Amino acid sequence: MKLNQKGLLIIISGPSGVGKSTVRKALFSLPNHHLVYSISMTTRPPRDNEVEGVDYYFVSHEEFLGRIKEDKFLEYANFVGNYYGTPKDMVDNNLEKGNEVILEIEVDGAQQVMQKKRDAVSIFLVPPSKKALIERLQTRKTDSKEVMEARLEKANREFSLAHKYDYIVVNDDVKNAADRIMAIIRAEHARTARSIYKYKKLLEDVI
Amino acid sequence: MKLNQKGLLIIISGPSGVGKSTVRKALFSLPNHHLVYSISMTTRPPRDNEVEGVDYYFVSHEEFLGRIKEDKFLEYANFVGNYYGTPKDMVDNNLEKGNEVILEIEVDGAQQVMQKKRDAVSIFLVPPSKKALIERLQTRKTDSKEVMEARLEKANREFSLAHKYDYIVVNDDVKNAADRIMAIIRAEHARTARSIYKYKKLLEDVI
Repeated sequence: MKLNQKGLLIIISGPSGVGKSTVRKALFSLPNHHLVYSISMTTRPPRDNEVEGVDYYFVSHEEFLGRIKEDKFLEYANFVGNYYGTPKDMVDNNLEKGNEVILEIEVDGAQQVMQKKRDAVSIFLVPPSKKALIERLQTRKTDSKEVMEARLEKANREFSLAHKYDYIVVNDDVKNAADRIMAIIRAEHARTARSIYKYKKLLEDVI
Repeated sequence: MKLNQKGLLIIISGPSGVGKSTVRKALFSLPNHHLVYSISMTTRPPRDNEVEGVDYYFVSHEEFLGRIKEDKFLEYANFVGNYYGTPKDMVDNNLEKGNEVILEIEVDGAQQVMQKKRDAVSIFLVPPSKKALIERLQTRKTDSKEVMEARLEKANREFSLAHKYDYIVVNDDVKNAADRIMAIIRAEHARTARSIYKYKKLLEDVI
């Protein structure tokens, strides 16, 4: 992929427990890409294995609310008492540089971004089966029973929005799902509406 | 790619001399595909290296005209006195079987197919530069000067139709171009409009 144009904004979303962050990490492990991960900001406390500035920017409620007032988020949401948001400036700066910016976000946030960024490419991850999703939700032991039930309920609503996305990718196997997303990125760059201006000189007065 | 749905019809087109058949052959040499090449029918005499039923079906003018009357072509065209056409039955049978059918055709024929098959995926190949195209046309020594001039003239008109295609792929390197086309095929399978019915059961009443 050449950096001779504005980068693509890629939304990776899907129901809780589908494996969004695992697939996103597998995507970044593929060779030869110009992908940049948009790190979210949150007021939720870090889990044991999470690193500030890598997994999230961890901030206080007060700081988060201040940034909402200043319109500094591309999207944000409150889930089970905690805020999660995508800082605007980092996304726009990277797109200008020609990098592909990957947003790995919840379904509500994805709707906000799709409305604000009409040329974003939106991908909805689905589990291979209902059973697989329930199993994944149950093995995430860091969540309380209450959080778990909220996630299950949310999943039903989230699935009903699948038709709003450009692409549906099944997470049957993490590597396969990442490969499919990379194929989508390559294909989107070749879409005529995005690429024809690159060939303008070639297409005018050819010979 | 699984054969659990109707196959895609992929149109590979572009100006004379851009390398359509070389790219198509490279595409078929990639691993793990379910691609089927739609062999064209022609009244032009075979070139030295061309094989009946592999490169083309070679038929008489009389037979070709009979098939036009019987509406047996998805598209056909006459170029420099010879007919070229895509037999309908083979294309439809393979799509029903779930194979991807690759049409490697001239720009005029591509327009006919796009009108008849609205869900076809259309790809326009472009050369990396004007110079590269002229050089390629000049080294195809099997063509007479007359044929060569007709091709150059045709190329200008052909380029003006690039915007009608879904994708533009540059043939800067044959392997790269084939890889890009394979990425487009994978991505198109994941497009929501094509794939959502596969997840219908999953998306209804999830948990």
